[in-house]
Amino acid sequence: MLKSFPKVTSGRLADGREIFWFDTDRAGGNGLGRDRTDRRRLPPTATTSERRWDPVLREWVTVASHRQTRTFLPSDDDCPLCPSSAGRLTEIPGGPYEVVVFENRFPSFSTRATIPDDGVVLDPSLYLRAEGHGRCEVIVFSDDHSATFSTLSAERVRLVIEAWVARTEALNAMPEVEQVFCFENRGTEIGVTLSHPHGQIYAYPVITSRTRVMLESARRHQLTTGRNLFADVLESERSAARRVVASNEDWTAFVPAAARWPFEIHLYPHRHLPDLPATSDDERESLGEIYVELLRRLDNVYGIEMPYIAAWHQAPARSDRELAYLHLELFSILRAPGKVKALAGSESGMGMFINDIAPERAADMLRAALP
Amino acid sequence: MLKSFPKVTSGRLADGREIFWFDTDRAGGNGLGRDRTDRRRLPPTATTSERRWDPVLREWVTVASHRQTRTFLPSDDDCPLCPSSAGRLTEIPGGPYEVVVFENRFPSFSTRATIPDDGVVLDPSLYLRAEGHGRCEVIVFSDDHSATFSTLSAERVRLVIEAWVARTEALNAMPEVEQVFCFENRGTEIGVTLSHPHGQIYAYPVITSRTRVMLESARRHQLTTGRNLFADVLESERSAARRVVASNEDWTAFVPAAARWPFEIHLYPHRHLPDLPATSDDERESLGEIYVELLRRLDNVYGIEMPYIAAWHQAPARSDRELAYLHLELFSILRAPGKVKALAGSESGMGMFINDIAPERAADMLRAALP
Repeated sequence: MLKSFPKVTSGRLADGREIFWFDTDRAGGNGLGRDRTDRRRLPPTATTSERRWDPVLREWVTVASHRQTRTFLPSDDDCPLCPSSAGRLTEIPGGPYEVVVFENRFPSFSTRATIPDDGVVLDPSLYLRAEGHGRCEVIVFSDDHSATFSTLSAERVRLVIEAWVARTEALNAMPEVEQVFCFENRGTEIGVTLSHPHGQIYAYPVITSRTRVMLESARRHQLTTGRNLFADVLESERSAARRVVASNEDWTAFVPAAARWPFEIHLYPHRHLPDLPATSDDERESLGEIYVELLRRLDNVYGIEMPYIAAWHQAPARSDRELAYLHLELFSILRAPGKVKALAGSESGMGMFINDIAPERAADMLRAALP
Repeated sequence: MLKSFPKVTSGRLADGREIFWFDTDRAGGNGLGRDRTDRRRLPPTATTSERRWDPVLREWVTVASHRQTRTFLPSDDDCPLCPSSAGRLTEIPGGPYEVVVFENRFPSFSTRATIPDDGVVLDPSLYLRAEGHGRCEVIVFSDDHSATFSTLSAERVRLVIEAWVARTEALNAMPEVEQVFCFENRGTEIGVTLSHPHGQIYAYPVITSRTRVMLESARRHQLTTGRNLFADVLESERSAARRVVASNEDWTAFVPAAARWPFEIHLYPHRHLPDLPATSDDERESLGEIYVELLRRLDNVYGIEMPYIAAWHQAPARSDRELAYLHLELFSILRAPGKVKALAGSESGMGMFINDIAPERAADMLRAALP
């Protein structure tokens, strides 16, 4: 892979938001060399977002009230992620593109976020309140509106991985950011409001509660065993093999022994790495292969486009980087065609997940889904 | 209220499951004095349910693989919760009824649950595995298929409360049970598979992860302030008044300052009580009034039947009963008509909730929803 890969071009949208084009820098259909000026007239965005500390569950909750009016399932003709054309200007100026990242127009977190001037006073003996600083970016995987991640070419997948790496590095370096989260929500069942193939990158101003719990587990495990918890989980799954779905020389994917979701796959690198930027060139190449394979297995279980959440767990920007262990958690909320695994009373009220499909059975189904 | 209220009749369904009729013992439409024998021929239920300890998130996950075939949105003619009639035998024998509780035919937890004989061995240095002991009961609020909780009479609501009290006491006394959770899921958006008005009672074999976190918060607060955390939260909301939705002499309902859901209401008794059995006669009467009022406010916000989860947080059966504080958490997953607040990447992947409606605005809307 050439050092010059990928070619990154940065710009500003009409309202000042940052945009980045990631190009393979080859001859052909990409937009390198084009004029990428955003010619729309956009009012400046006003982001009112705050985080509040819940003293009962001891975690931050974000209140982003301006998002209620965000774009909701536009018709294909109005897709804001398709390339701009002469007749229609979208979020992405400059015609055809490969991979594009830009700041969300309706972000949950923004370095410019302010607390609304609403006179609300929270009891300081119980609550904390702060601006919802941080950043929310959209990563668009293709200019083809009807593509899906699992149909991207290997070269394109690699470009997406390079974009995740570059944005993780850049966002980790921002003083407001404590944790960078690359993820994809796919399917209207997940609440996806735009069908154009895209993911998101959240740069949180705090370490999320999930990551805090995981790091605390890893800390305890380290103290009592001297070993890394995640490395032990991976080793245990590789040695049992019962729930392994796919593997190659750098990565292993398995259904976790205590899976919460009907179809849940965790993908770990064999090396103990903190985050995507730490992966080698070879690991990125082999990641692309196995990642697409996993998405295809998921779709093939029932022969439908499975709704899924693909969530990259990376080390925090500045703390506990040696305890954390890069991995992907990929899960579908569908337990059968047309039957969503809803988070009802037990899950949403009490945090007790009830999974109708045994992890071993899910692994069997996922293994059988591709030859 | 007479000491003999309610009149409880117990029986067994054809496959051995327990059933309880709660009657007001008055003349009229209830089924007292009728033959309540279940005349169906039912095969015995086989419950394969297990719990597995997740060492990464340090919580139990339940795997109940027999539930995948459970009844799913039957037509109204096939409703298993309607009263049995000469021509059609349902789960509830004996004709018209008031409130009925019975063991779920497809339970997530059962005292008879067994671990499937699947040869699965989990690494004991990381995982624990145990039978999914406990109990899952269905509580049917009315024999009227089209009723909803918010349209029940005051007398009927009181009977439901008495049933919650009686079942909490009975289930807390079972040696397998650590925590009793009374809840209602309402609406297909929540994943409700039967539309007949009913709730559920889960008797968990462990203290749920949510409750463990809440009790740990209360323990820390007690140590540092000498006061009860939940009492302080209630006092803070009552004194600020900004987010209070409704109140009477015994109960106050408010939108929590760090609400996770678009419409979320917490209902606390003014007295520090561990659970529903500890409420006084007066408190049960005033609870019925305010509970129905809250459900009506929720429906009136948009003039539609709001999908909701109503979750009763009660003290564990045997531990930390003085730290816990009885309260209801009632929340809707709808952020606007037709728009579900989906738990997508940030919530399901990282535990970071993003709420589009400010708690103060939700409180305003809920207050304005009824005169």
